[in-house]
Amino acid sequence: MRALAIDVGGTKIYNTIVDETGKIVAEIEKRATPKTFEEIREVLSEIVKKHEDKADVIAFATAGAVNNENTGVLGSTGNIAAGYPNMNFVNLSTKKVFVENDANAAAWAEHILGSSKNCPYSVMLTLGTGVGGGIIVDNKLMKGKSGAAGEMHFKLYRDRRRKCTCGAYDCFEAYASGTGLMTTARDITNVPNATTYDVIGEVNAALEQTKGFEGLKTKTERLMLAASSKYVEAFLRWQDDILIGCIGLADIFDPNVIVLSGSMAQFVDVEYVESELNKEIVTTYTEVKLASAGNYSGMIGAALLAMGVGL
Amino acid sequence: MRALAIDVGGTKIYNTIVDETGKIVAEIEKRATPKTFEEIREVLSEIVKKHEDKADVIAFATAGAVNNENTGVLGSTGNIAAGYPNMNFVNLSTKKVFVENDANAAAWAEHILGSSKNCPYSVMLTLGTGVGGGIIVDNKLMKGKSGAAGEMHFKLYRDRRRKCTCGAYDCFEAYASGTGLMTTARDITNVPNATTYDVIGEVNAALEQTKGFEGLKTKTERLMLAASSKYVEAFLRWQDDILIGCIGLADIFDPNVIVLSGSMAQFVDVEYVESELNKEIVTTYTEVKLASAGNYSGMIGAALLAMGVGL
Repeated sequence: MRALAIDVGGTKIYNTIVDETGKIVAEIEKRATPKTFEEIREVLSEIVKKHEDKADVIAFATAGAVNNENTGVLGSTGNIAAGYPNMNFVNLSTKKVFVENDANAAAWAEHILGSSKNCPYSVMLTLGTGVGGGIIVDNKLMKGKSGAAGEMHFKLYRDRRRKCTCGAYDCFEAYASGTGLMTTARDITNVPNATTYDVIGEVNAALEQTKGFEGLKTKTERLMLAASSKYVEAFLRWQDDILIGCIGLADIFDPNVIVLSGSMAQFVDVEYVESELNKEIVTTYTEVKLASAGNYSGMIGAALLAMGVGL
Repeated sequence: MRALAIDVGGTKIYNTIVDETGKIVAEIEKRATPKTFEEIREVLSEIVKKHEDKADVIAFATAGAVNNENTGVLGSTGNIAAGYPNMNFVNLSTKKVFVENDANAAAWAEHILGSSKNCPYSVMLTLGTGVGGGIIVDNKLMKGKSGAAGEMHFKLYRDRRRKCTCGAYDCFEAYASGTGLMTTARDITNVPNATTYDVIGEVNAALEQTKGFEGLKTKTERLMLAASSKYVEAFLRWQDDILIGCIGLADIFDPNVIVLSGSMAQFVDVEYVESELNKEIVTTYTEVKLASAGNYSGMIGAALLAMGVGL
């Protein structure tokens, strides 16, 4: 079996063909996500028409919460055209069409062939511009009553400090995301246009500077020593925000592993997070790992789900 | 089928007989929980010997996290004899013995015959001296890799304000529990020996005082108006702590309903919590309800699970 896999994100649309083992067996095509609903529909229709004869099923990994029937998007996500929830995915092909949220799909890819393989219970966090979540409970994707489960909008404070994109205050996403790191850096440095690049630049410089320091094994220990920079301080606070969220999720889910994915995950010292987390939780030892299913885990996971792999 | 149901708590041990419909069909016996492991074992053995011939299975609802085999307790809970995790429940009878955590068991009772009946997804919080949790995902009790899932030790702050009984800081339990209300009241009033009774007394007086106020429908609206008392302020803050935790849980689980149980639940204005929660969450409408399976839901739920009802 083969799936035509299509990833619909806020900025890019990718597509390829994925086989039953999760292997990408065709070229990966990439397009910019158009601004209007009609244009997005046109692009998706074009991709399907071009490639559907090479596949048995059509698998979409998409931004936005996806319903429990895996046929459509429940609500708009803010970073995609307003009419997007009205997309009729099923009508795009006469073949079987399957839709899943991109973070959920990526969590499934990690579960089948990545860092949470052979783990009945896992929590995957995608740390990018925002924060997404995909949760595996007893080898199944946790969807919730409407399909929207796994939203990481639990609060890190309860006294209204920082507004989140969702409109509420102090959600985990508002701190643990790339945008969260930027905001924390601006708060700490008082540099109004500080960026995550500034932060990562200073972190890398500090790591370079402390390279030979004996007895300091983890990146975080070295950064703590070199923490004269406000940017490094912002980075460490951001990393601790991720840690604090992971502690709560570990106690709630008692997972085998928490997997960090997304463009910001590579900067996290997972050795430090795992070690600190296990000092605080009341459940049993929980691993923290970086994702390993690669950059196209959304497409792979959606394809595997669409073909029923692991279900 | 009938189950001999035994509830082992930190202060009391209860037992009765429960039938397959969840009905209590015998007298409820009550004993104080002894201080040592050997004495607890003696009491449990005595109960089993006395009643096992009236039942097909022996069902324990107990303090502490219970393993995934439902045969024993994973770790001590602080409020029961230190050796308790060594209890060999299975050896207490030649009949089938089944053990489940008391909050998980109560969540199952609510799921089968209480406030979360017919709900595939629910979160139950037991608000008592501490806070317990039992979570139903896709009509199944969520246990986690070791059986310890549902621990409500996610954090309400990330800057170390209040120590929790678990040794960490600022866990939901440290704020949302009866003990949490007491601590909040002492913090706000500066009365070092203020109790939850003092708080509830003032709350009831304020409700009495505002009984006839037109246009104020909820208890909370009336309390806000009468919030001249520091005790009432402490109560409202406690209720908002519960609300904040429920918002996070609603976004993570997308449950049909959040059920509040335990001795402190009766004081919560669930109408207010449900209304405020649904203003903030990013998932779909989530109900908030008081538990309805009654005071012995732990025994009922353990009995139903032991007899396989709903599995």
